[in-house]
Amino acid sequence: MHKMKSVRSLPKFALTVVAIACLSGAPAGARTGAPATPDQVKKPLTSADVLAASTPADWRPLDPQSTLYMELPAGRVIIELAPQFAPHYVANVEALARESYFSGLSIERVQDNYVVQWGDPEGKKPIHTAQRTLAAEFERSSRGLSFMPLAETDSYAPEVGFSDGFPVALDPKLGRAWLIHCYGMVGAGRDNDVDSGGGTELYAVIGHAPRHLDRNVTLLGRVVQGMEILSSLPRGTGTLGFYEKPEQRVPLKSFKVAADVPEAQRTPLEELRTDTQIFTEYIDARRNRHEEWFKVPAGHVDVCNVPIPVRPRTTTTTAH
Amino acid sequence: MHKMKSVRSLPKFALTVVAIACLSGAPAGARTGAPATPDQVKKPLTSADVLAASTPADWRPLDPQSTLYMELPAGRVIIELAPQFAPHYVANVEALARESYFSGLSIERVQDNYVVQWGDPEGKKPIHTAQRTLAAEFERSSRGLSFMPLAETDSYAPEVGFSDGFPVALDPKLGRAWLIHCYGMVGAGRDNDVDSGGGTELYAVIGHAPRHLDRNVTLLGRVVQGMEILSSLPRGTGTLGFYEKPEQRVPLKSFKVAADVPEAQRTPLEELRTDTQIFTEYIDARRNRHEEWFKVPAGHVDVCNVPIPVRPRTTTTTAH
Repeated sequence: MHKMKSVRSLPKFALTVVAIACLSGAPAGARTGAPATPDQVKKPLTSADVLAASTPADWRPLDPQSTLYMELPAGRVIIELAPQFAPHYVANVEALARESYFSGLSIERVQDNYVVQWGDPEGKKPIHTAQRTLAAEFERSSRGLSFMPLAETDSYAPEVGFSDGFPVALDPKLGRAWLIHCYGMVGAGRDNDVDSGGGTELYAVIGHAPRHLDRNVTLLGRVVQGMEILSSLPRGTGTLGFYEKPEQRVPLKSFKVAADVPEAQRTPLEELRTDTQIFTEYIDARRNRHEEWFKVPAGHVDVCNVPIPVRPRTTTTTAH
Repeated sequence: MHKMKSVRSLPKFALTVVAIACLSGAPAGARTGAPATPDQVKKPLTSADVLAASTPADWRPLDPQSTLYMELPAGRVIIELAPQFAPHYVANVEALARESYFSGLSIERVQDNYVVQWGDPEGKKPIHTAQRTLAAEFERSSRGLSFMPLAETDSYAPEVGFSDGFPVALDPKLGRAWLIHCYGMVGAGRDNDVDSGGGTELYAVIGHAPRHLDRNVTLLGRVVQGMEILSSLPRGTGTLGFYEKPEQRVPLKSFKVAADVPEAQRTPLEELRTDTQIFTEYIDARRNRHEEWFKVPAGHVDVCNVPIPVRPRTTTTTAH
């Protein structure tokens, strides 16, 4: 909550900070106190420092085969899919996209501090090659999962952390893992029957993490660019935030797998790998913030307060 | 993430649920399983059930002397102040309102998943009777505090719970308590110096709780109505979400203490008391949701996932 004045006096890295939607910090354990000279301690790293020190190998390009472009009147929303968690849902949403199922459909629900939802509110639109419903993919085996655990305890799950760029919860006793409903996560709506979803209706989280939805509905991806287009939509005034009049709905201009879009029209992005030393340092920098503005380092971080950095694809080491 | 279909088939309490911006649930410990007959177990209560069973004594009217009305082009935003946590800041913001300090000022910053901020970006507007800056009120003694603890562990604080309608953290060893940066909380911007705030610039949280700000900046209230007006504003594209062009700013039509507004123009609201048995039951109903749609009760709840119910003031026991 900087005043404008302090924003103006922020050092150069502020722009980097904004670009990746995070503030910065320092390694855990490095507490503020009397200013130390450079000889005494290593300067605590901010998240901007961490990212600036990253190498190209710390980033992975988004796979166009697992990326969706949702074109709205206000611009492109980009979703990274998570086939490692919801293989059948991801395949089905891609099949729906490829048969132009979403053409002519729209965003029909925006509930404040909760979700934006789009698809076919009537559930009647004909489907040609894809499936209308699928068995739930609420969780998976934790075996074979690349998992970067967070040291913090969590209110909802035995363990939380990150896997391939997604926030993940894990129950070591049960050997099960599942995606977490953090801000920007995308899931498939369903009716009361657990197997009544399939991707014909999708939603994105636009508020404080609704963790009570974890393991109750199939998550299949997360918004990696254009989140502000969804989050700033007018809230619906009907039950559960549905728009009351059809003309309030926001039309989907198109909804495509990135690989099906001509290369020149794609948005090449890369994401910080979550199985790296640099990501561990980035989490540390989120845990304790050491810019001059911060006075009391939190010492802890919520799994949903570690937005995974995404940036335009680059071949240099410069954080943009 | 109900589909439209299931929304349609939701029972009558759905409207109540929406009105108080929550879903419903059931007491902790009551797990789903084979359907039980009415003779076997007491029906698990949803939050709608809990509120429907409340009596007028479970609610308290908002005090017009501690309530602010911020009038924006899109409507009225209502803020309940917390003088028990930030007495000098609250008094100063009221003094600023009373000398029409905010007239002609505007919302100048909207950062996605973070904050909306308004006031004087230049910090130059003359002040007549109020103070420009005050000593920080980041925390207070926990002595004498009405505190309803939450059973859950918290990632950030030794204890969390609720006090007089506000989410609160507490350190029993230090005997200190502080307000928590949940969705909708309102604070006073500052520069790098901890005592450089005062209320001339204010912000509201519009995303996942930025708990790292706790104890780093003075919180002084929360938005109790009109939150969707703030959260759906276009995001700023400048550094930290500041609007880059002055014409993008959203003008404050007025900013007044409710007590200074003629009674006929006020919005009478009441809030569920947080020191009641009914509030405990309400938390239980947030902890485990037992409508048919939910399959796996979370069994836990985050302090920022317990929105405190607010409704138009009524003299009946009917939840609206």
